[in-house]
Amino acid sequence: MPDAFPHLAPSTRLRPSPFHAATVAAGLSHATTYNRMILPTGYGDPRAEYERLLHACAMWDVGAERQVEMRGPDAARLAQALCARRLDRCEDGQGVYVPVCDHRGTLVNDPIALRLAPDRWWLSIADSDVLLHARAVAGERGLDVAVHEPDVSPLAVQGPRAEDVVADVFGPWVRDVRRFRFREARIEGIPVMVARSGWSGQGGFEIYLLDGTRGTDLWNIVKEAGRPHGIGPGSPNAVERIESGLLSWGGDTDDATNPFEVRMGRYTHLDAPDDTVGIHALRRIHEAGPRRHQLGVVLEGPPLPVPQTWCAVMRDGGRDGERDGGRDGERVGDLTCLAWSWRMEANVGFALVSRDVAAGEGVRVSVDGREVGAQLMELPFL
Amino acid sequence: MPDAFPHLAPSTRLRPSPFHAATVAAGLSHATTYNRMILPTGYGDPRAEYERLLHACAMWDVGAERQVEMRGPDAARLAQALCARRLDRCEDGQGVYVPVCDHRGTLVNDPIALRLAPDRWWLSIADSDVLLHARAVAGERGLDVAVHEPDVSPLAVQGPRAEDVVADVFGPWVRDVRRFRFREARIEGIPVMVARSGWSGQGGFEIYLLDGTRGTDLWNIVKEAGRPHGIGPGSPNAVERIESGLLSWGGDTDDATNPFEVRMGRYTHLDAPDDTVGIHALRRIHEAGPRRHQLGVVLEGPPLPVPQTWCAVMRDGGRDGERDGGRDGERVGDLTCLAWSWRMEANVGFALVSRDVAAGEGVRVSVDGREVGAQLMELPFL
Repeated sequence: MPDAFPHLAPSTRLRPSPFHAATVAAGLSHATTYNRMILPTGYGDPRAEYERLLHACAMWDVGAERQVEMRGPDAARLAQALCARRLDRCEDGQGVYVPVCDHRGTLVNDPIALRLAPDRWWLSIADSDVLLHARAVAGERGLDVAVHEPDVSPLAVQGPRAEDVVADVFGPWVRDVRRFRFREARIEGIPVMVARSGWSGQGGFEIYLLDGTRGTDLWNIVKEAGRPHGIGPGSPNAVERIESGLLSWGGDTDDATNPFEVRMGRYTHLDAPDDTVGIHALRRIHEAGPRRHQLGVVLEGPPLPVPQTWCAVMRDGGRDGERDGGRDGERVGDLTCLAWSWRMEANVGFALVSRDVAAGEGVRVSVDGREVGAQLMELPFL
Repeated sequence: MPDAFPHLAPSTRLRPSPFHAATVAAGLSHATTYNRMILPTGYGDPRAEYERLLHACAMWDVGAERQVEMRGPDAARLAQALCARRLDRCEDGQGVYVPVCDHRGTLVNDPIALRLAPDRWWLSIADSDVLLHARAVAGERGLDVAVHEPDVSPLAVQGPRAEDVVADVFGPWVRDVRRFRFREARIEGIPVMVARSGWSGQGGFEIYLLDGTRGTDLWNIVKEAGRPHGIGPGSPNAVERIESGLLSWGGDTDDATNPFEVRMGRYTHLDAPDDTVGIHALRRIHEAGPRRHQLGVVLEGPPLPVPQTWCAVMRDGGRDGERDGGRDGERVGDLTCLAWSWRMEANVGFALVSRDVAAGEGVRVSVDGREVGAQLMELPFL
């Protein structure tokens, strides 16, 4: 299926990351786009890339995770206005996972907000134009803050041996960096920020490259240091991230998804300041109770192709169609992602479904032209 | 070069258009992404696709050209707030090409604004999240308007025979539709809007499909009607659009580009209302004089590979390095796109360069690892 997919056509509209040349040299075979950049997704051996992430370590070009920098007297005020989570306890050198919502309380991005200094913040974003959103809010409010995209491109090192690799590169101090904390460093003259973060459940670091001309150099330093630890190229892993219950904004969300629906309720602070964008809508949504929730789905049968669109999820009334009070076949929501889990030996995915259905219930999913039996589960799977 | 490029990986984050299945059946080989959708760019024979567009007609899946709908009592007010062009003379059934700027006067999109009714407008957008920008402005101003993305997906029919094809499908009235005007219609029960528009210099129509379940049906109707006129699959054409001088937002613009720099000055009305986003900045920029301008470039030698990034443009002082007052080699800007023109038998592209250099001057362009001699020209080329 992926092999039947079209080639990505070169264009100056889709920027390569500073690590792009290194990824091509490493055998890049598949890619997606993210924030109008090329984001590698595969090097020709999905199983090996998955096993490496679970049992050794993998290095990922995630330069497409762009930063939106807010700098100036009103930077903290703007950061708080954009994030539906209280940032007042965030310290210099700390990142926090935040819902960014529009005025309707709809999730428009789920970045990490990083405080570099009281008047200097980054949002390390998922795949939407937070830059436009942030500038519009700052401009309309007349805030004294510069909003721009700096020359910053993360290289992720993920997996159980990631800490050893990053410590070999930068020194043993990295072992003391706590989750979502970061620190500036330099290696062979290359300026970076080292953060304990990354879009996997296997732990690891993101090395934020601060000089876009040094991508290949940094890639090669990490590759060499990782050799004794079994490092190899990889990418944000479609299988592992589902097993680990990690959200993909835009893939698992639609234009009506609020943070409560996708397990971001604990990161959503209803006591955020009243001028936080969307906070009034979020309070109303919370009070009324969100309509949907996100659950895991385990589907029966052999590996299914990766769908390109959401797949309808229906109630399964059992053989006699009676188990759900005669509501067998009623559509209750959508499957938003799907992958074959080698560890679970099953097709697994996320469902965004009505709160009328719960973990443990049986459903049917319309995928690849037929209905497949499935069970709803709590997330994460593993 | 394109064949060495990675495959696009399937994902629910990148939506297929309603015409996607039809494009795959037609032999889709290359694609890009646009507004987080798959946008076909090739069917395996670039020369045939180009000739068809110039001498017969081509049908393009441009479903990725999304619409941002503004509807409600303040719809016209929001539309005007977003567009740095006076919309007060725009009539129902009329579209106008508009600069959408941020508060800094930077171009963030170059859509067609379509007035469907006094209280219902669409922005038919290029590749950035105008939806976020529009909602942020509406939300901050407390406007009474709903902003959403409707189920609307354009299918373009472009080329000298396009009018015959579209007239055969919908009737002879389409011949009277003026440039950028549109009209609702229906074919075999499929609701559409027929507009005389499209991203080529060859003329033609865009058929806005208003029911996403009928994509393959509409594709096949147009394909059958086009058969006697030599229709075939195609896509927004990287060669023809350069020859015709058409702007690609995001490809030919950067995060500092204002409309005056990219030949959109005549669509930028400095007497737009004072609450138009960016209008104060645009007035200042206009008064000070923009720093750069966009020119055509003709490069020497045989076909060059399509670059993935902007290429430095340097002054060419001639053999003795004296022609530019000793400033030979000084960087004056960037080449933003490049293609081999079969009609001009040359490499052609756009340059965004300092106003210190002008059409007619010789430059050198750093492309594919070496410096290539080139000449600046007025746009369009043809």
